[in-house]
Amino acid sequence: MTNDPIIALRPIGQVKRDEGDEGLRGKALRARPARIVLDPQLTDALLGLEPGSDIVVLAYFHEADRDVLQVHPMGNRDNPLRGVFATRSPARPNPIAVTSARIERIDGNVLHVVGLDALDGTPVLDIKSYAEAFDTPYTA
Amino acid sequence: MTNDPIIALRPIGQVKRDEGDEGLRGKALRARPARIVLDPQLTDALLGLEPGSDIVVLAYFHEADRDVLQVHPMGNRDNPLRGVFATRSPARPNPIAVTSARIERIDGNVLHVVGLDALDGTPVLDIKSYAEAFDTPYTA
Repeated sequence: MTNDPIIALRPIGQVKRDEGDEGLRGKALRARPARIVLDPQLTDALLGLEPGSDIVVLAYFHEADRDVLQVHPMGNRDNPLRGVFATRSPARPNPIAVTSARIERIDGNVLHVVGLDALDGTPVLDIKSYAEAFDTPYTA
Repeated sequence: MTNDPIIALRPIGQVKRDEGDEGLRGKALRARPARIVLDPQLTDALLGLEPGSDIVVLAYFHEADRDVLQVHPMGNRDNPLRGVFATRSPARPNPIAVTSARIERIDGNVLHVVGLDALDGTPVLDIKSYAEAFDTPYTA
């Protein structure tokens, strides 16, 4: 696998938050409205999204440790060690977060959303329409 | 946004399929068992996953068109044009697929799964434990 080519990605935009959100994490952070400021050249790719749309947001945890293979979930040492692929820890070889969110408003290239589990300044890699077929546990 | 740094990712493994799967797409493809062959150096990151585990798999659609901003969903011209961020089309600036799957068996660095919507040879970027909080539509 070490011969696989490197994949190069460019962020499509960035998460912006109000200063009042500093220090918030988890559920409290997700409940606060946030903005995804898209590269204006990509605005046409929003056609069909509207207030109330459920989306899946891929963000890049640029400060995550990419060399850690096992963690105590939630950073709690009472939780037994788990492989990062068995968790949602930001620490993982390719630290891409996947989080559902809901659109509240769209102003040009700016999406106003709620539900994002990402801090101010986090690079955004992708936005997808939520789809039961791909986003609920697989059943034949 | 064009000043954002490039993000470099290395696949954690690759999808492997039987020859009999050639030509299958969509639901028929997902129903067929597939293997994710991990970089053996990452095997420790699987600790805690087991048969029956629901996972979310991030794969890289290396043949997707990254310059298309709008598509007719499902490639059907009767469907009105939509922005790629309002679809699950593989065509998008960063063509990362997100798909739920279920683990059937683990042999060392090889995960036997069902539910994958990816062809033989597709690079895999990440595996996550399915989590209702992040994978169902956001509710406050």
